[in-house]
Amino acid sequence: MNYRMMGKFIYQILVIEWIFMIPALLISFYYHETHAVHGYLLSLAIIAGIILLLYLMCKDAPSGFYAKDGLTCVGISWIVMGLLGCLPFYFSGEIPAFIDAFFEIVSGFTTTGSSIVPEVEKLSMGILYWRSFSHWVGGMGVLVFLLAIASVDKRSSGYTMHLLRAESPGPDVGKLVPKMRRTASILYKIYIVITLLNIIFLLIGHMPLFEAVCTAFGTAGTGGFGVKNDSIAGYSPYLQNVCTIFMLLFGVNFSCYYLLLIKQFKNVFKDEELRLYIGIVIASIGLIVWNLRGFYGSMEETVRHAAFQVSSIITTTGFASTDFDLWPGFSKSILLCLMLVGACAGSTGGGFKVGRLLFLLKNLRRNILQVIHPRKVQVVRNNNRVVREKVLDNVNAYLAAYVMIIFISFIIISIDGFSITTNISAVFACFNNIGPGFEAVGPTCNFASYGVLSKLVLILDMLAGRLEIFPILVLFSRNTWTRA
Amino acid sequence: MNYRMMGKFIYQILVIEWIFMIPALLISFYYHETHAVHGYLLSLAIIAGIILLLYLMCKDAPSGFYAKDGLTCVGISWIVMGLLGCLPFYFSGEIPAFIDAFFEIVSGFTTTGSSIVPEVEKLSMGILYWRSFSHWVGGMGVLVFLLAIASVDKRSSGYTMHLLRAESPGPDVGKLVPKMRRTASILYKIYIVITLLNIIFLLIGHMPLFEAVCTAFGTAGTGGFGVKNDSIAGYSPYLQNVCTIFMLLFGVNFSCYYLLLIKQFKNVFKDEELRLYIGIVIASIGLIVWNLRGFYGSMEETVRHAAFQVSSIITTTGFASTDFDLWPGFSKSILLCLMLVGACAGSTGGGFKVGRLLFLLKNLRRNILQVIHPRKVQVVRNNNRVVREKVLDNVNAYLAAYVMIIFISFIIISIDGFSITTNISAVFACFNNIGPGFEAVGPTCNFASYGVLSKLVLILDMLAGRLEIFPILVLFSRNTWTRA
Repeated sequence: MNYRMMGKFIYQILVIEWIFMIPALLISFYYHETHAVHGYLLSLAIIAGIILLLYLMCKDAPSGFYAKDGLTCVGISWIVMGLLGCLPFYFSGEIPAFIDAFFEIVSGFTTTGSSIVPEVEKLSMGILYWRSFSHWVGGMGVLVFLLAIASVDKRSSGYTMHLLRAESPGPDVGKLVPKMRRTASILYKIYIVITLLNIIFLLIGHMPLFEAVCTAFGTAGTGGFGVKNDSIAGYSPYLQNVCTIFMLLFGVNFSCYYLLLIKQFKNVFKDEELRLYIGIVIASIGLIVWNLRGFYGSMEETVRHAAFQVSSIITTTGFASTDFDLWPGFSKSILLCLMLVGACAGSTGGGFKVGRLLFLLKNLRRNILQVIHPRKVQVVRNNNRVVREKVLDNVNAYLAAYVMIIFISFIIISIDGFSITTNISAVFACFNNIGPGFEAVGPTCNFASYGVLSKLVLILDMLAGRLEIFPILVLFSRNTWTRA
Repeated sequence: MNYRMMGKFIYQILVIEWIFMIPALLISFYYHETHAVHGYLLSLAIIAGIILLLYLMCKDAPSGFYAKDGLTCVGISWIVMGLLGCLPFYFSGEIPAFIDAFFEIVSGFTTTGSSIVPEVEKLSMGILYWRSFSHWVGGMGVLVFLLAIASVDKRSSGYTMHLLRAESPGPDVGKLVPKMRRTASILYKIYIVITLLNIIFLLIGHMPLFEAVCTAFGTAGTGGFGVKNDSIAGYSPYLQNVCTIFMLLFGVNFSCYYLLLIKQFKNVFKDEELRLYIGIVIASIGLIVWNLRGFYGSMEETVRHAAFQVSSIITTTGFASTDFDLWPGFSKSILLCLMLVGACAGSTGGGFKVGRLLFLLKNLRRNILQVIHPRKVQVVRNNNRVVREKVLDNVNAYLAAYVMIIFISFIIISIDGFSITTNISAVFACFNNIGPGFEAVGPTCNFASYGVLSKLVLILDMLAGRLEIFPILVLFSRNTWTRA
């Protein structure tokens, strides 16, 4: 591990965080929120001090990275980003306990949306903005942002690839265009355009500007922090439907939008992951509507809530249009399974990813066929291209890590004595970056009642979920910390 | 699919089932249980008729098997064994609904131990005997028994290997000795000797002979059917401890006993799976004892119940010495995780198997190391031998199938409207062949309240769990039913 190289990387990330914090300060200033202004100023000063320190110590370090260093740097930088990003919550006094503030901002950056705040409407505007903005920047990734704006010299092109791979969701990261920097820049441009569209559609439905911006941030990052105590439940049916549609859009692989831009419509419609994603969404909505018959007054209401909740859970956003913890068991079971599936690879959503599920199903099918016809060589294809064995092996290892992290986390947090359903859904909700779970962590409750140890475990789960496990897992490997 | 070949195979299996049913008839006769005698006579007549029919139709079929046919035959033969084995329950009138009788006997053969009988003490002796005996024969496998006694000509040695592989639990089936028939025979001899030891130790503790035999059957097959309403809770501490020890013994890979027999003590103590198994058992007991402090009157009682329940769950037996559904959440979470782990490969226990977990952990470790040192070639070793990539790939596919079956079953049975905890633990308990779950399917309750569809799903889960998924999965593949 080259610590100076890491330091150089981290101060660049912190500079971006520092700049992003300025608008939050200005909003607090505009609304005369003295405590929040004070909190932001103190936070900005501390972050600036750390940036200066790291700059002086590490400015001459080279910028080449091995895969290992890339992963470790991403893991560490997200933790540092969380530790410093939560300072405004803490210093403003609006979230009095540091562990809670840390939990809240990690939940923000990882686009989880699990909250320890009992009543969000009591928070100041400046704090609400920063909370929602953390979703937006966390969704596409701070590193991707850095890559999009930084001038990277040719020698370190391998470095950028490693970094992007570490932060991007999905089993097989494709470059849209040969140059990494242009890829990052295209991704952010698409991201900004759809976010703006989202804001406009919300404004058309008479949502106040501040709420529209924060809601769009939460939707774009598939995060789920809202500015209302009842999430989206209090808004009009039109606004709820706008949210449903945009949540689904942000759960799609962004390379599909790029293909649309360059007019390769055929490739988009033939994309197997997209088809499976749409299929799962429609099937789940259908089954829940069938199961909920008679639960709401009208068919329109049933379909609206079913579609909203399915979109919210599969994209791992976590907005709530109704208290789905009251739904019958079958519907809740479907939601629990959707929690695990997650959105498409290369989207801002979390979870296992539809693409991985597709590979898993195909690999399983191959294994069955191989049992039936042992002498035939079988390959796995995706979109008519042969999938490399290494990718399949990686998906399998991912599943193994995924299952084991869930069980270890589940055992540790169950020390706090909540019910099995609460604990399982808490781990699912954090690890898959969804937000609300069931029962004591359901849509009308929050995570505040867990102990410090459980909160730390859930924080690591959120980070592992957002960064696709390995950048966090390598931090626990002895080999990472020895000089190879 | 060669149907005549399959028919020949099935009637051989049915002959064994027919012979095994005779002692149950005699016991019913001895105790003057008219209904049971009538039920057995009718069942035996029907089975004899089917045997005769299959014999006349298929006696000239060859006995060679491809892998595909082997797996399919095993899957089909277990289903047929269940459909005919449940006839005594049904015809005696002691289990009035056919689906319940079918559920009960599949639960027996697969050594699950989930019951739909509310009060077992109301069943007649003859029925209780057959119910417990199904555990014993299902534990080591009917096919393995057939192989141990059948004279197999040399041409079909590949056939026996395929069959044994389909019925034997574990990721990599080793032959103890070059000849398959001798391997099967050694396995059954070890099995019989430990079962007899178990009966003797129970008799020493003044357990009545009939109860001792039935309890030993349930222990040996790691099944869990008892002859008392309160399972093992009413017996003396000595008897409970005997059960604890023998449950653990039957959860060990039987090749370890063979190694002991041929005096290779060193290889036994160095066996990595055995070490992990013992490690998990001791750690779990320790954690539960810590969590249960103050729950029981004395330390002896706490340790006894903790050790009993851990052994019962990890070996997937399912006996209960106490109502563990009342234990605090942390202890229940540990039990829930142990449900998934299961016993050692090559034992009579079910679950994912400690051996597979070991491979999974090692493969995961390799994947992390490969990220850190991309250019180093890493291999996975077990007991100092390199594990073939194909075995690892198979373990991974197994995990994928495992997770998917759990989720699909979970969704289907949740239509019946029980709680999430009930449904999850019901699927875990059946699929891993454990027996009791939590809440509505907890140690003091039973599975009778589920609907027919759920029972069918759980029956398939039990079979898939016992036969290690693939023999049941191929039955759902179109390729199995077409002539290749």
